[in-house]
Amino acid sequence: MLTPVTEAFAADLRARLPEACFRELTPAYLEEPRGRYRGQGGLLLAPGAAEEVAEIVRACAAARVGIVPYGGGTGLVGGQVMAEGPAPVILTLERMRAIRAVHPAENVLIAEAGAILAEVQAAAGAAGRLFPLSLASEGSARIGGVLATNAGGVNVLRYGNARDLCLGIEAVLPDGSVLHGLKRLRKDNTGYDLRHLLIGAEGTLGVITAAALRLAPIPARTGAALMAVEGPQAALELLALAQGRIGEGVSAFELMHRQGFDFLAETMPEVRLPWARAPEWCVLIDLGLGAGQDPALTLEGLFAEAAEAGLVSDGLIAQSEGQRAAFWSVRESLPLANRRIGAISSHDISVPLSAIPEFIARAGPALARIGQFRINCFGHVGDGNLHYNVFPLPGETRADHEGRRVAIKACVHDLVDALGGSVSAEHGVGRLKVDDLERYGDPAKLAAMRAIKAALDPAGIMNPGVILRAPA
Amino acid sequence: MLTPVTEAFAADLRARLPEACFRELTPAYLEEPRGRYRGQGGLLLAPGAAEEVAEIVRACAAARVGIVPYGGGTGLVGGQVMAEGPAPVILTLERMRAIRAVHPAENVLIAEAGAILAEVQAAAGAAGRLFPLSLASEGSARIGGVLATNAGGVNVLRYGNARDLCLGIEAVLPDGSVLHGLKRLRKDNTGYDLRHLLIGAEGTLGVITAAALRLAPIPARTGAALMAVEGPQAALELLALAQGRIGEGVSAFELMHRQGFDFLAETMPEVRLPWARAPEWCVLIDLGLGAGQDPALTLEGLFAEAAEAGLVSDGLIAQSEGQRAAFWSVRESLPLANRRIGAISSHDISVPLSAIPEFIARAGPALARIGQFRINCFGHVGDGNLHYNVFPLPGETRADHEGRRVAIKACVHDLVDALGGSVSAEHGVGRLKVDDLERYGDPAKLAAMRAIKAALDPAGIMNPGVILRAPA
Repeated sequence: MLTPVTEAFAADLRARLPEACFRELTPAYLEEPRGRYRGQGGLLLAPGAAEEVAEIVRACAAARVGIVPYGGGTGLVGGQVMAEGPAPVILTLERMRAIRAVHPAENVLIAEAGAILAEVQAAAGAAGRLFPLSLASEGSARIGGVLATNAGGVNVLRYGNARDLCLGIEAVLPDGSVLHGLKRLRKDNTGYDLRHLLIGAEGTLGVITAAALRLAPIPARTGAALMAVEGPQAALELLALAQGRIGEGVSAFELMHRQGFDFLAETMPEVRLPWARAPEWCVLIDLGLGAGQDPALTLEGLFAEAAEAGLVSDGLIAQSEGQRAAFWSVRESLPLANRRIGAISSHDISVPLSAIPEFIARAGPALARIGQFRINCFGHVGDGNLHYNVFPLPGETRADHEGRRVAIKACVHDLVDALGGSVSAEHGVGRLKVDDLERYGDPAKLAAMRAIKAALDPAGIMNPGVILRAPA
Repeated sequence: MLTPVTEAFAADLRARLPEACFRELTPAYLEEPRGRYRGQGGLLLAPGAAEEVAEIVRACAAARVGIVPYGGGTGLVGGQVMAEGPAPVILTLERMRAIRAVHPAENVLIAEAGAILAEVQAAAGAAGRLFPLSLASEGSARIGGVLATNAGGVNVLRYGNARDLCLGIEAVLPDGSVLHGLKRLRKDNTGYDLRHLLIGAEGTLGVITAAALRLAPIPARTGAALMAVEGPQAALELLALAQGRIGEGVSAFELMHRQGFDFLAETMPEVRLPWARAPEWCVLIDLGLGAGQDPALTLEGLFAEAAEAGLVSDGLIAQSEGQRAAFWSVRESLPLANRRIGAISSHDISVPLSAIPEFIARAGPALARIGQFRINCFGHVGDGNLHYNVFPLPGETRADHEGRRVAIKACVHDLVDALGGSVSAEHGVGRLKVDDLERYGDPAKLAAMRAIKAALDPAGIMNPGVILRAPA
């Protein structure tokens, strides 16, 4: 059983930690972007070094006080707030934001957990390298949270998920020991891979304090195009065609539905829309090529062959970096537009690549049996990852459909499960999908997860209630 | 405490398993390539399905009988034999060798654990795809063992280690439950990544029975070159130059020392050597390019720029696939030539890329303080992974140096450790490096590994004594 933070506990920590570790708990630390959960108060601590994190964790373990690790606060599944249970320590990594080292010749960068993703990208860029992880919240998300949730984003197709971009971690384990695993090695087969266990564990098995990150060369030439496709099947065939012609040069391949453009027009008129009249479906293709290649010509060649094959009906090829940025601004503004409309239910799902058309074809009619909705389906189709979000009709609000939310979610997730997919592709489980994991998760996997959690965190102090239900 | 296999235990299993599961235990199952360990007898079982594996594991868990999972028997650290302790079950996956499915449009192949690596490569090839994992023992190694040891090989530079090529696994856990994790997804953030935990666990946390493997497009054009370089630093600079010019098209980048060619001439005269007089150091560069590119021209351009920069003094560019195969035959024959000479001590190490020259510069003089040896240093320099093997002088045998083996190993491994490297880059820990892991491993990592092992395998039946010392 956990106990709440007390005055005595806080006083004891004040005697052991520098003054700088104590910050005022402002409301921002208790909110999350989708407004589903409201964190309770507690003790906010901002350690400045791994050893200070360890000191805090040891104190919490001894007193059985829960710890909520806090990165940039951008997570979408409520993993950064603790709404129930005894008041916890909220442990923000914001003071640990140093880029400890950059090794351009090795394509490695060492960042502390509190470094903001955009800062890591900038530090890599200043060294003539690319840190390829890129997502809508990169201006706020911190690298520790990005790793703890194994974030995805738009460049997974070419460069992999967050876990694929991490060579080693430093972390504080639930017993307060420091895992010194910041190796800059491409190969290291010395025992169980704790890095991959902590990545994606959402702070429930320890606190990542720093990471050795993998960099890539900056592509000499970049380009982008929007191409109108008849539907998801044509999008997949276009992807295969693009990869066949351009190989690893295809950095991103994003599907968008017209609904997203309509939402942008309605809620974010400042975003300039590329199409006069948006097609029902389109893809945003991004290329990163070598010095000898011309992205616009490459995309023109792709479009010509795709048009010949009947896969595309219209296309816009960026003629400048500004135009490419404008295409991306459209894509990256979709989540905020969605938030302004107010989804009844949002789904971050993945299915095997070839099952995408079937998923989209079946999900709409299945939902229509529950009620009438607007659906914005978009996402990283090259990774089999869709954001399938369900909205009220114009004039209605999400509150009008509150009673249907459970049925909508079950409808979408049951279909995903039937197609061999995942009910959380890139956002994680957090608090939001604990039930889903119990419902759809493999029983042997769940049992093993519980055994690992109990072994490494017997008091259950690390991010209680996230991923696994906290013991009653 | 474990108990030995008994007649009664075997009789009980005979009543529960099909006759085909019982095979004669021939001496081959008790040997390993380097002859360091001799396995004891036991009960050989060859299950034909995951459920039969589960039945065996449950019986062993109930009776506390140890299990040694057996793939192709090609491991180099003794993980496939149990020399001491109560007689175990030797569990060979050789009957589970089906390619269950190939999904070329998704770049996925599902293989059972007993499928031989070369068979997986061939099945991918028949579907117009590449399974890029490639290593000297690919004609015997089985995919389950390849994953259990997180094998590396020559294409890691471009395509990653075994773990990077695995999307999902089916496995039997130490309690006999079946982990159904054969998802064909690029993104799946639903809880702890047990796939990455079992990959590299060398059979100590369960038995992998099948895997969803990631395929790649077959490069349209391939090419290879041997280039003489002045030394390791020049090799690294040549690598940077090659990647800058050719990007992901560089599939492999292997360093070889003249000593290896001398060993080939001495022990394998049937291997045709490419150089009339081998340079002290050379690299084998392998390219996989798109349809529009010419590998030989690309390599000529690279050579010209490298020569201009003073990095290369001589070069051989393959003019045909046959010549490329001949270059690779030289590289792939090195391990067997080494075995025929007979190493006193072999080291599979990695260091940060930029530390390779320092490692090589310091290791030789450090060893010279112990005695006079021949050193064959070769390997995957693009991954920071060297095979640094120490041999007796001509006319001596390894037996003459038996007393120096411990000092040699400590000398090499201490230097690796000082440079932030790994004492097992791609071969794993097995039985051979249990001591090294205790000596060089991070204490927090070791404690967490022991906690995980105890939680998932409380009776300690899975590959006892591998990676972690078996409890006394």
